[in-house]
Amino acid sequence: MKTNFVSDITNIKDGDQVEDIFLVKVKQQLLRKDGKPYLMLKVCDRTGTIDGKVWDGVEELTGRFAADDIVMIKGIMSSYKGTKELNIKTIERMADDAVDLSDFVAVSEYDFDSLEKRLYSVITGLKNPFLKKLLTLFYEDKEFMELFKIAPAAKEIHHAYLGGLLEHSLEIVELCRDMKNHYAEIDLDLLTAGALLHDVGKVRELKYRRSLDYTDEGRLIGHIMIGVEMVDEKIRLIGDFPAGLAMLLRHLIVSHQGTNEWGSPKEPQTLEAIILHNLDDLSAKVNVFRKAVRTDSGEGDFTSFNKPLGRYLYKGRNTE
Amino acid sequence: MKTNFVSDITNIKDGDQVEDIFLVKVKQQLLRKDGKPYLMLKVCDRTGTIDGKVWDGVEELTGRFAADDIVMIKGIMSSYKGTKELNIKTIERMADDAVDLSDFVAVSEYDFDSLEKRLYSVITGLKNPFLKKLLTLFYEDKEFMELFKIAPAAKEIHHAYLGGLLEHSLEIVELCRDMKNHYAEIDLDLLTAGALLHDVGKVRELKYRRSLDYTDEGRLIGHIMIGVEMVDEKIRLIGDFPAGLAMLLRHLIVSHQGTNEWGSPKEPQTLEAIILHNLDDLSAKVNVFRKAVRTDSGEGDFTSFNKPLGRYLYKGRNTE
Amino acid sequence: MKTNFVSDITNIKDGDQVEDIFLVKVKQQLLRKDGKPYLMLKVCDRTGTIDGKVWDGVEELTGRFAADDIVMIKGIMSSYKGTKELNIKTIERMADDAVDLSDFVAVSEYDFDSLEKRLYSVITGLKNPFLKKLLTLFYEDKEFMELFKIAPAAKEIHHAYLGGLLEHSLEIVELCRDMKNHYAEIDLDLLTAGALLHDVGKVRELKYRRSLDYTDEGRLIGHIMIGVEMVDEKIRLIGDFPAGLAMLLRHLIVSHQGTNEWGSPKEPQTLEAIILHNLDDLSAKVNVFRKAVRTDSGEGDFTSFNKPLGRYLYKGRNTE
Amino acid sequence: MKTNFVSDITNIKDGDQVEDIFLVKVKQQLLRKDGKPYLMLKVCDRTGTIDGKVWDGVEELTGRFAADDIVMIKGIMSSYKGTKELNIKTIERMADDAVDLSDFVAVSEYDFDSLEKRLYSVITGLKNPFLKKLLTLFYEDKEFMELFKIAPAAKEIHHAYLGGLLEHSLEIVELCRDMKNHYAEIDLDLLTAGALLHDVGKVRELKYRRSLDYTDEGRLIGHIMIGVEMVDEKIRLIGDFPAGLAMLLRHLIVSHQGTNEWGSPKEPQTLEAIILHNLDDLSAKVNVFRKAVRTDSGEGDFTSFNKPLGRYLYKGRNTE
Amino acid sequence: MKTNFVSDITNIKDGDQVEDIFLVKVKQQLLRKDGKPYLMLKVCDRTGTIDGKVWDGVEELTGRFAADDIVMIKGIMSSYKGTKELNIKTIERMADDAVDLSDFVAVSEYDFDSLEKRLYSVITGLKNPFLKKLLTLFYEDKEFMELFKIAPAAKEIHHAYLGGLLEHSLEIVELCRDMKNHYAEIDLDLLTAGALLHDVGKVRELKYRRSLDYTDEGRLIGHIMIGVEMVDEKIRLIGDFPAGLAMLLRHLIVSHQGTNEWGSPKEPQTLEAIILHNLDDLSAKVNVFRKAVRTDSGEGDFTSFNKPLGRYLYKGRNTE
Amino acid sequence: MKTNFVSDITNIKDGDQVEDIFLVKVKQQLLRKDGKPYLMLKVCDRTGTIDGKVWDGVEELTGRFAADDIVMIKGIMSSYKGTKELNIKTIERMADDAVDLSDFVAVSEYDFDSLEKRLYSVITGLKNPFLKKLLTLFYEDKEFMELFKIAPAAKEIHHAYLGGLLEHSLEIVELCRDMKNHYAEIDLDLLTAGALLHDVGKVRELKYRRSLDYTDEGRLIGHIMIGVEMVDEKIRLIGDFPAGLAMLLRHLIVSHQGTNEWGSPKEPQTLEAIILHNLDDLSAKVNVFRKAVRTDSGEGDFTSFNKPLGRYLYKGRNTE
Repeated sequence: MKTNFVSDITNIKDGDQVEDIFLVKVKQQLLRKDGKPYLMLKVCDRTGTIDGKVWDGVEELTGRFAADDIVMIKGIMSSYKGTKELNIKTIERMADDAVDLSDFVAVSEYDFDSLEKRLYSVITGLKNPFLKKLLTLFYEDKEFMELFKIAPAAKEIHHAYLGGLLEHSLEIVELCRDMKNHYAEIDLDLLTAGALLHDVGKVRELKYRRSLDYTDEGRLIGHIMIGVEMVDEKIRLIGDFPAGLAMLLRHLIVSHQGTNEWGSPKEPQTLEAIILHNLDDLSAKVNVFRKAVRTDSGEGDFTSFNKPLGRYLYKGRNTE
Repeated sequence: MKTNFVSDITNIKDGDQVEDIFLVKVKQQLLRKDGKPYLMLKVCDRTGTIDGKVWDGVEELTGRFAADDIVMIKGIMSSYKGTKELNIKTIERMADDAVDLSDFVAVSEYDFDSLEKRLYSVITGLKNPFLKKLLTLFYEDKEFMELFKIAPAAKEIHHAYLGGLLEHSLEIVELCRDMKNHYAEIDLDLLTAGALLHDVGKVRELKYRRSLDYTDEGRLIGHIMIGVEMVDEKIRLIGDFPAGLAMLLRHLIVSHQGTNEWGSPKEPQTLEAIILHNLDDLSAKVNVFRKAVRTDSGEGDFTSFNKPLGRYLYKGRNTE
Repeated sequence: MKTNFVSDITNIKDGDQVEDIFLVKVKQQLLRKDGKPYLMLKVCDRTGTIDGKVWDGVEELTGRFAADDIVMIKGIMSSYKGTKELNIKTIERMADDAVDLSDFVAVSEYDFDSLEKRLYSVITGLKNPFLKKLLTLFYEDKEFMELFKIAPAAKEIHHAYLGGLLEHSLEIVELCRDMKNHYAEIDLDLLTAGALLHDVGKVRELKYRRSLDYTDEGRLIGHIMIGVEMVDEKIRLIGDFPAGLAMLLRHLIVSHQGTNEWGSPKEPQTLEAIILHNLDDLSAKVNVFRKAVRTDSGEGDFTSFNKPLGRYLYKGRNTE
Repeated sequence: MKTNFVSDITNIKDGDQVEDIFLVKVKQQLLRKDGKPYLMLKVCDRTGTIDGKVWDGVEELTGRFAADDIVMIKGIMSSYKGTKELNIKTIERMADDAVDLSDFVAVSEYDFDSLEKRLYSVITGLKNPFLKKLLTLFYEDKEFMELFKIAPAAKEIHHAYLGGLLEHSLEIVELCRDMKNHYAEIDLDLLTAGALLHDVGKVRELKYRRSLDYTDEGRLIGHIMIGVEMVDEKIRLIGDFPAGLAMLLRHLIVSHQGTNEWGSPKEPQTLEAIILHNLDDLSAKVNVFRKAVRTDSGEGDFTSFNKPLGRYLYKGRNTE
Repeated sequence: MKTNFVSDITNIKDGDQVEDIFLVKVKQQLLRKDGKPYLMLKVCDRTGTIDGKVWDGVEELTGRFAADDIVMIKGIMSSYKGTKELNIKTIERMADDAVDLSDFVAVSEYDFDSLEKRLYSVITGLKNPFLKKLLTLFYEDKEFMELFKIAPAAKEIHHAYLGGLLEHSLEIVELCRDMKNHYAEIDLDLLTAGALLHDVGKVRELKYRRSLDYTDEGRLIGHIMIGVEMVDEKIRLIGDFPAGLAMLLRHLIVSHQGTNEWGSPKEPQTLEAIILHNLDDLSAKVNVFRKAVRTDSGEGDFTSFNKPLGRYLYKGRNTE
Repeated sequence: MKTNFVSDITNIKDGDQVEDIFLVKVKQQLLRKDGKPYLMLKVCDRTGTIDGKVWDGVEELTGRFAADDIVMIKGIMSSYKGTKELNIKTIERMADDAVDLSDFVAVSEYDFDSLEKRLYSVITGLKNPFLKKLLTLFYEDKEFMELFKIAPAAKEIHHAYLGGLLEHSLEIVELCRDMKNHYAEIDLDLLTAGALLHDVGKVRELKYRRSLDYTDEGRLIGHIMIGVEMVDEKIRLIGDFPAGLAMLLRHLIVSHQGTNEWGSPKEPQTLEAIILHNLDDLSAKVNVFRKAVRTDSGEGDFTSFNKPLGRYLYKGRNTE
């Protein structure tokens, strides 16, 4: 459906017609020098962002869309102070099912429904009745699942795309399952529940319907504290959830960042917590590595300096 | 009532009778080489600790007392591998009102009831109806207040004595009140509530009926997380507690240690949080300073090396 | 008097006449390709900086003003490599009383004379005759007071405006006074003198007649060492100033940054030094917070990332 | 065979006969005041160490044993300055197969031969002919294998027992194998070779025939550098070992500690290196955790403070 | 020979002819929209870099030169998106002796041959026969010496110019010689060999025929490890090189960065290693200082902020 | 003169007569149970410390000596709780010239007068008249020189013996002189003056007539600040000492510890300051190394763990 991407837009000359689909990142109503209102927009797709202005019919058009909507825009390409911008004539909200979300935002390579199915399968496989009940309550909470299904694992850094949180959590669940073969004393159900819930607070820490940012409580309280609250809320709905089990599960959430410096008020003190932190870290690093190698377009065998890991990464496969 | 303190006990010769009151710190039932049980105790007062053994009448005596009880002991002074110990003949639990607690454990210099009165006066002075209601719920929770009245502020370091937590919290409340004169934009009720509640999780982080130690959830979850849970629990009892206010109050608890390194998952981001952290730190340091100066018996103008502050402290008053 | 501010200057077209008042930040005489001299200026007001060139009459005009002067400029707006600059025709130094200094540089919201009066009142209220004499010597030193009255507390970060040092020092004095109610053993006169003098070395560490920068000795020696020297110089004028008192006062200056890492060769070892450091830190942080909240123009409840504090700050007042 | 362990030795009275087997930790020939030689020994078993003196027949007895031998001692229990010591009358070296090594030193719970078989199986399973050849050269190097089979993974901290190095290396190999299911782009043969060889330098870094200590080159050069040298030595024996493969394998060894701070001159820059470091760290931490939980005899649900991990560890299984 | 430097190129108008010598930094063959190949170059001299494009005769011209060659270019000055670039018509490789290398890259102020002579003199002055033999082997290795003579000591930071490594190494040798007068127990031959060889791995860590960058093994293994390998390789050629001496020499290389944080897996543990690290550090810092002072063109007595040292540097000579 | 050293004292049986010379480290008058006074002493020589008690004739004997005196003691060897102590009968102060100070305290291996002569020679060799005058004023200040001649360079760590400060300062002066050959732009007179004066504040930071400790102003202000004050005091006596020179000299003192973390409020910003810090550090480390190697009596090629340097040191000379 989408024809031109922002990265190609320099091919379009001033005065040309543009008719295409964009995601509205910013929408502000400002005043012109003569006192009349106009709309200042920033619209984007997955390749970049471009400014747009609505000078005419502001009152009518402004009601047709909101920030984070995906819209069909018709307008004229123009320039302002050497920068391209769209002089927008008409704008219409697109129905969700009429667009391919991945044209506009980064999205997990797994589709949301398959991730949800894997989640369901993990939950039904739990043997501990309390943990199974707890996870089921989360799973049956529609409002929550709608958010959890598409949440990113971070604003930047690793798994920073829609669906990234669930993809990352399930990856850890599966890594944990293998650990049971090596470290038999692990309480695998507890560890699995911890893997699924360790970052659950991110659904409230981040805003991410389409563009990613922190919420107010995300900045002021943080996903660890929010996650514990969310778990506690469900636990209260289960009459007889064992206090000791709740404490160990909370410990998994509280300690999963590994050290105070990384924002965990407590360091891992159980075998499950030590493993969860290590595998969470591994999953994040592998994700960063893969993205760096995939997106780096430079010559040579190394990526450009990778900020999240603080080093250059070797993308070559030279074994000769 | 108490005659001899542990620090004087080397004056007593082996074979002498001892009849005095002690606090039972440790009580373990072990087996003798011949398979019979005996009791291995560690009993103490505020000056030190001494071992005690019950060889005879174990079954009868063991039922009469528990760890953390204060007991009257009759026995014979003896030695084992060069260390004094009590060969205990009889042992009886003392009634709480028959002993002076401060003979056995460190206690705030303010009496518990006067601290409670100051707390009540602070609560009744709050103007914000939600915060007043919240604090009143805590105040009216008898089980909580019994613990809160005598809680220490720490296991070691600062205000590490019964009543220390309330003394410390009220000190901060009063320091905060003065700040309002300098920084008028402060929300004083919010700051006051934060000062009273910032360490409230310590009533569950620490065991302190008499001797001080961490609880399991204290180690695994920590007082910050516990404190937020306790506050949330009360907030749920108030139907319409504003979400924004709850968030800012939680932020005060979450950020009061000041930095990640010190165990706060978030740094202070509001004016009230900046002030609360600074005054919490000041109150703690002054308490450490006062204790060091008061208890140091060395010559010269400096204390011995003070571990909590990591330096020598000047106890002289030389202004000449 | 001033009509256009630099922030508005893009409204003026190339070729338009400009006649307005500016502060001369940089003044350099350079050579044109043909070997003739021209003046390269940077002129500013509180909203920004713009380049200026004097091509004609250089010899005559250059004698009429110096860097840090405030001048009336007449010229023509022009552009060079896409950047606006002033082609200056005439330039005249303005008398100090003909300009409003706050149009050009950041200035304390308190006027200098009222700050001086508060200082005088603090000094006359001291009871310790030696400290009173010492502070009075500073106060009566006209050359010093002229500098001290308008000094900023820093080049950047906190209280970085004319008058900021005295405003900051008096704020700490008043915070200290309240502390006496809580910590009665404080030597309040000593603490007050420390609060007034802790940053006194900044009058020589910084250049700040109008624009702010470090002096050579500021960079090489630093305000702590300079401050101690300045205090010692006055103490020598007082015959019998007690050696112990001088030592404790010097300790307040030397340790006020709190740790080696922050540039204090010694950590606070007296109660007064512990308090001075905490309140100095608090005053600085509150000042940073207030400035960030006042000047941030972004949407949402958070400021942009605040470098001095290393975090985002919450500027919302959401208690609902 | 061994009757009394050092931990029981206080049960033996001065003057009693002792006849038992010990490991000789230290053997020094010193001079008595009258100028005659005597032997000062420290002998031990897995429970502790005791001093021994040979006063008579020194010349004859000294030739019969050396430090690190296991010996049968006959002597008389005595005391010197309050400490028990053995007055040794006869001493005879024991044949290796006449003693149970695990009575004297910490030993892996896996027997050495089964570890060697698992190693052989891993090597024969490699598909990359160069890596298979390389590992086979190590395996066929008898002198090396004799050392590698019994090497500990560390002097202290984790896997600090005979056989610990091979146990630890094989554990990582198996953890790595599972990773291939999750991260398919891994070069599993390379990762496996890295897992087997990452700590191979420890066979020269440590002295460990029986008691553990660092060698001179262990202290001065370290196991990372030594390991690379050992691998290079074998690679030179293979004519056409690919240079790129050798570089990537060396990188695995060089970077396996993860950061400069932990002694790796380079951080992991390949996917295999990132994974190897994480799993090495995990294997070490789990080993520390298990040992702490197994050996801690205190009451309560926590171990005593665990130095290697810098925290208390939860040994409880309270899920109720 | 060279007429215009890149820094002057803005003086040349679009459409003007350019005929001059440049160093080819980057050479890439890309495709035009119409599918035909063109060459995208970056050419430079010591003053800067400019883009160049070859649109015609690509197939013929591309064979005449390679990256890192110095070439004579004829072309037309043009602009693309506001940036100057050369439209190249002909391009010819220059013979090495027809150019002055220092027009294109930074070069030591000492000429390469004089540095080599000083090196030879140091080697012949060694008394220890093994170290003399070892260094002679390096000196007689032509391939090595060709690289060693022109190697820089770093990609950036200190001695980052051709010949810098040898200049730096000889400077340390001479500083070491003086140390012998103060610390007589030094093994001067060992220390001298260490000084010459401590950074020898940089000939493989860096690519520097003309432009400087890291090699793959430089990034993955690092110059310390490479240096040890290079030394070991020569030592193997000397039949009876003493093992202890080799160990101490390797220790000098391994520890010369001083701490783990700076990339040395071991800290200096011998007197020679302590001295080598200190003088290496001193030589580097003096080199940074000199360069900063020489190249800084700002006014005032201080350089701009110096990143390698993390501070402003005083370039004044004010002793009045 | 001295017969027995404390290290040999266990050879003396209880009840034996002792008559020997000791240094009085601690002297306290306490009360016996019967209320009569007695003297509790700690007396020492360079090998150790022993307790002493004066039970009789206290009033008479106490007037004959003070702490830090060297005294002739006659008494009876006895024991108290298993520890040897002297029952002292008579005690007499020794004249300074009747004792060999090095029997009692650690002393530089250079004699004080030869150090003083080297100092004089350095001063007279200065060419800068102001620096020469400044140093001469120090040299001619008898009270100062008496302290400076015997001052240690530290309480512990390096050069911690009488005369150590001057020995250390002169060592740096001589190391600096060599630097001039390599770095010709050095202002050698300035650097020499800095080397002599960098630690001059230690004469007031430390108490060291015989035993070493910090003074009050040593702890509260520190030797850097004190040193600057001492230099300023002399500079004031020289009418026209150039301000710039004074600033650079003060910078050498202020920055000589190298970083804030090590207590320098400023980092080295001049070439001389960079060199002074490096050589100060080198001299200290060599001194630590030498002492560790000289005093370590363990077997093997390594010293025990060296705290000041934080590592084991290689004391072997194995180059075979």
